[in-house]
Amino acid sequence: MPFHTPSRFPRGFRCASRNVGLKPTDKDLAAFVSDVDAAAAAVFTRNHFPGAPIILGREVVRGGVLRAIVANSKCSNVATGEEGVANARRMAIAGAEEFGTSPDRVLVSSTGVIGVPLPIEKIEQGLPGMSAELQDDPLVGARGIMTTDSHPKTISCGVAGSEATITWVAKGAGMIEPNMATMLVYIFTDARFTAAELDEMLREAVRDSFNMLSVDTDTSTSDTCVIMANGLAGHAPRAGFAAALKEGCVQMAEIIARDGEGATRMLRVSVRGALDEGEARFVAKAINNSPLIKTMVHGADPNVGRILMAIGKCFDCTIVPDRTDAWVNGFQVVQGGRRLAFDDAVVRQSLSSDEVHIEVALGVGEGQAMAFGCDLTKGYIEENAAYYSS
Amino acid sequence: MPFHTPSRFPRGFRCASRNVGLKPTDKDLAAFVSDVDAAAAAVFTRNHFPGAPIILGREVVRGGVLRAIVANSKCSNVATGEEGVANARRMAIAGAEEFGTSPDRVLVSSTGVIGVPLPIEKIEQGLPGMSAELQDDPLVGARGIMTTDSHPKTISCGVAGSEATITWVAKGAGMIEPNMATMLVYIFTDARFTAAELDEMLREAVRDSFNMLSVDTDTSTSDTCVIMANGLAGHAPRAGFAAALKEGCVQMAEIIARDGEGATRMLRVSVRGALDEGEARFVAKAINNSPLIKTMVHGADPNVGRILMAIGKCFDCTIVPDRTDAWVNGFQVVQGGRRLAFDDAVVRQSLSSDEVHIEVALGVGEGQAMAFGCDLTKGYIEENAAYYSS
Repeated sequence: MPFHTPSRFPRGFRCASRNVGLKPTDKDLAAFVSDVDAAAAAVFTRNHFPGAPIILGREVVRGGVLRAIVANSKCSNVATGEEGVANARRMAIAGAEEFGTSPDRVLVSSTGVIGVPLPIEKIEQGLPGMSAELQDDPLVGARGIMTTDSHPKTISCGVAGSEATITWVAKGAGMIEPNMATMLVYIFTDARFTAAELDEMLREAVRDSFNMLSVDTDTSTSDTCVIMANGLAGHAPRAGFAAALKEGCVQMAEIIARDGEGATRMLRVSVRGALDEGEARFVAKAINNSPLIKTMVHGADPNVGRILMAIGKCFDCTIVPDRTDAWVNGFQVVQGGRRLAFDDAVVRQSLSSDEVHIEVALGVGEGQAMAFGCDLTKGYIEENAAYYSS
Repeated sequence: MPFHTPSRFPRGFRCASRNVGLKPTDKDLAAFVSDVDAAAAAVFTRNHFPGAPIILGREVVRGGVLRAIVANSKCSNVATGEEGVANARRMAIAGAEEFGTSPDRVLVSSTGVIGVPLPIEKIEQGLPGMSAELQDDPLVGARGIMTTDSHPKTISCGVAGSEATITWVAKGAGMIEPNMATMLVYIFTDARFTAAELDEMLREAVRDSFNMLSVDTDTSTSDTCVIMANGLAGHAPRAGFAAALKEGCVQMAEIIARDGEGATRMLRVSVRGALDEGEARFVAKAINNSPLIKTMVHGADPNVGRILMAIGKCFDCTIVPDRTDAWVNGFQVVQGGRRLAFDDAVVRQSLSSDEVHIEVALGVGEGQAMAFGCDLTKGYIEENAAYYSS
């Protein structure tokens, strides 16, 4: 399936972004709008302290119809109590007025610092007039939702056997760990599906993509992945659409992993031969999240014994040391639970790539899984030791 | 219970350390010897890839009697197959010959890089003559087992109602996460107890100390905590001994946390009011291990909303947002799930201490627990991005 950076949205979708004074000069408010009502489904963070936009979003998405998404950065409107939920409602009302729909068809998102009140007046004063600025270029909206991202994130693909296309717009760089992984992923398509069909396909796609993505094991209180299907391109074959949706989510998960806070390399961990899929997912995540694996990858240090350490700390999984093999970018480094005697320079070279793929075969069953992450660097420390203060 | 840095061992224990050529010039081999047989118990790593010394150590400790411990650094003898176990046996035999006992009374420990063969000849050639160098100062042995530690770690205390004392000698700075936390902790006492009594008291002490300690969530393949009791001071009251043992293990856990790789501050997390003790332990560890909490502590950044994020990602625990309170070094920052409006400067000041104590009250039950850790810094990245190569 060929993915590309889109220059335009699927039929009937447009976006705009502005600075409304939450940040000094950068864009801090974005809107994504469909010309007509769109069937919709969403998956939200499982964190026990969901942001006010998540509390409201669950209610809104239950209706199965969306017309617009309005998102601000700088303040996440989390841990702000009833006043926070009231502010999220005011944001939806302001969006509905501007884009000519009802508040129950507007999803709001907020990302940024946890626990400070949302400056709702700035948003209410900043929104009017945005409908006149709506345009067809997804990059405009992608730029509008960036926080610590180093670049805007959009991809697009066609759906085989149809006129439909799918476009992903996302942000996310830190506080990223399943469930859900990504802070914000908005998916737009002009294919026609019901909300129930979208919900089923979205959950399946998220399971193997964003829910296997971790930058730092920390789960955001704001994570949102939403899909809007406005039907303007008519019917699309379900199987082909579901496959494209999943593949695009995996691609976007990798794009987010590669842009993880401070990251210099993307890490992909695949596990096969686990007792079952659950254990495969657990082991893949343990390797993907290990600080000692992540620093080894960062330093391109051929200290591959750490792969065994990380597998071995999965206490409740079935691990048989002498059946355990491992590869780094295709080069075998562990066989039967023993580190092979190899030329360090070869592994060092292999670890020096932009992408590091660690493969593990456990030899005890048929379970397999893949996880996505990145290296751990001083850049991560720098970004996060003064996030609030800066 | 007053703890101090000991200038001498409990009666009948001595130690020595040497450079035998595993490292360029630093001490790389240490021995701890009792003048008489000592009852012994130990707890080892739960990692599925235990080092050869762990495999042999489980067998040796089953006998309940130890005379000596011989430990090398630089090479951990892990993931080295049958040859590795054979090398560990040769190390025990060499120790037994030198210290006049049988190999089944010698515990060996190896720490360092995973997956490279142990240079056993250097150890066999380096050991002879060490018995003549045995001395009463625990610091000599503590220095001999250091790897990335910034200082040798020893503490000591008396046992109330007896003539007995207890001395802890430990090393550990990274790859530290329960079960077990510490790479090596050796505990020596001249009190008289059976191996079964020691085993029970040691497990209880380790549970609330080293098993609640994490520097980086990674579980070493070499962790060992062993106690030797040679009885030369006669009887000691069991309750008092058990209390001193646990308290000393907590103290040593804090000493190790404070010396975590790259650490500039110690982190102590206490949770109360959890549904049960299991959930209290889970939440305490989640906060203690969160990279975003650890970087916040490092930067003394009053971004305390992250405490709620970390509590909230404990998906399977009972969390009631509006009953959740939190304090930083005694200063309340969260009440009823909401970040309080406080003077940032006060919290920044409080976070700037050598010790940061995060307290959480969940308000749903009686469960409580405490976890020990440290901040996450560029120093950690530096030490671990080139550990193998340097």
